Amino acid sequence: MLYLIGLGLADETDVTVKGLEIVTKADRVYLEAYTSILLVDKAKLESFYGRSITIADRELVESSSDTILANAQHQTIAFLVVGDPFGATTHTDLVLRARSLGIPYQHIPNASILNAVGATGLQLYNFGQTVSMVWFTDHWKPTSFYDRIAENMGIGLHTLILLDIKVKEQSLEDMARGRKVYQPARYMSVSECAAQMLETLEILKEAEEEAEEGSGASSTPKQPKQPVYSPDSLAIGVARLGSTEQKMLCGTLAELAESDLGPPLHSLVLLGKRAHELEKDYIKDFCVHEETFEASWAKYHGR
Amino acid sequence: MLYLIGLGLADETDVTVKGLEIVTKADRVYLEAYTSILLVDKAKLESFYGRSITIADRELVESSSDTILANAQHQTIAFLVVGDPFGATTHTDLVLRARSLGIPYQHIPNASILNAVGATGLQLYNFGQTVSMVWFTDHWKPTSFYDRIAENMGIGLHTLILLDIKVKEQSLEDMARGRKVYQPARYMSVSECAAQMLETLEILKEAEEEAEEGSGASSTPKQPKQPVYSPDSLAIGVARLGSTEQKMLCGTLAELAESDLGPPLHSLVLLGKRAHELEKDYIKDFCVHEETFEASWAKYHGR
Repeated sequence: MLYLIGLGLADETDVTVKGLEIVTKADRVYLEAYTSILLVDKAKLESFYGRSITIADRELVESSSDTILANAQHQTIAFLVVGDPFGATTHTDLVLRARSLGIPYQHIPNASILNAVGATGLQLYNFGQTVSMVWFTDHWKPTSFYDRIAENMGIGLHTLILLDIKVKEQSLEDMARGRKVYQPARYMSVSECAAQMLETLEILKEAEEEAEEGSGASSTPKQPKQPVYSPDSLAIGVARLGSTEQKMLCGTLAELAESDLGPPLHSLVLLGKRAHELEKDYIKDFCVHEETFEASWAKYHGR
Repeated sequence: MLYLIGLGLADETDVTVKGLEIVTKADRVYLEAYTSILLVDKAKLESFYGRSITIADRELVESSSDTILANAQHQTIAFLVVGDPFGATTHTDLVLRARSLGIPYQHIPNASILNAVGATGLQLYNFGQTVSMVWFTDHWKPTSFYDRIAENMGIGLHTLILLDIKVKEQSLEDMARGRKVYQPARYMSVSECAAQMLETLEILKEAEEEAEEGSGASSTPKQPKQPVYSPDSLAIGVARLGSTEQKMLCGTLAELAESDLGPPLHSLVLLGKRAHELEKDYIKDFCVHEETFEASWAKYHGR
């Protein structure tokens, strides 16, 4: 039997009672540790469970899943995932493989960032599709997330942005030399995300200007595209959701780009136009500046 | 201190270890019991927690929240919510009231239908806004949910539909006579939801035909609006998510309207155009008929 068990978001006590019972009795326990992290380490989990666990990196899960599933027809395998196994990163591949081997499976759900973000006070009903943001490099600045945000904004919806995580990454040099040496883990912050959103506006503006110059002296001057967000658009930065160290900060993107919400994990929510007064009452409590908050609310969300 | 504690979806063991610790030590424990239910009753919960709990109906939570919050400056109050307290129904009102009384609060997250629906194998990334469906009556058939689905479908996204629940409802006669007698609880099924979706298509078609007739012999015949879904559109019915009695069924709306997924709770997911092959592999496993499934997939989701 394969159990896919959600661990929730913050620490070892966020597992469900049902999940914990299975973990303590399972023949083997794996912890998926490349798409998210708890705020406690493996040793803390092992001490809490009273048993050892095996870290499952991307290679093991994606290329060697039969190792995980070995003898699962007769043994109990607990596969632990931070958040929920079908949350931001789904483990449908592993289930498909289990099915093909005739291994029964069960899902033990838990909170993931995708629903716990309701703690911001924004209605989950009014969220559109979720977006991911990766770190820009000097030569690679993928702005495709912008199109998804534009789709959500087009129908007035909030957007949850999941931020990049680099775990077990090799430097280009180590990779070239075949050295299995890994860089320290890195987690994108709310301020980095907001700064990249502002940078994206610049990139798109430049691209548009270049396209216009290229088109020469056209007789029908193109209407400049209306950006779907601006430096004074409101967003909420969320840090360490579900822990006692949880922190939320509502401000303009320009303000959040200068913020510091402390240790990981962070996420960001961009407010949609449909935001209503009850949501406003709730989030105003943790705004950076009441004045800029009210000004941006009146500009983008006032009715 | 006010704790808002998610109970998860299925039974008493879906509470988190952290949540359970708080419940067992709290001065008072309330169970919000009008927006969703666990698949076990109050007695089972009380026996598991080893203490008594107070059922909080809509009236208590919405009109008498100060009763719940009494002495919470000095006492510990556990407010239990099926799923997550900021899930489908948010309890931001109660938090706003606590804040105004200077009562600290903490949220103990858990799975809600809004993220656990990832267990269908559909990517949570590709879900648009969530929609609610209420029971149609002879005189009241609100089709506004259709517009939200249309917005999601317009950008290719899946839609989760939450189904109506009637708990502690009075009959019109009892209400008129001021008798506090309540009807048995009712929970909308996947087949009722699918049938109402088909009925909605008929209602919208009739409304359009009437509008056309009313406009007389116009010289510019209006293009009939393309319906965003059809009787052969694919959807997934989900029942008792997170329990060992969990059941999923993927079929056309016409097929699901004839289905029987057993006891509550049920939800339905309407597939968006962006559905991809990995999702197909996963959901095909629980389709009503492979032939109709393949036909509808090719028609609406094939690339």
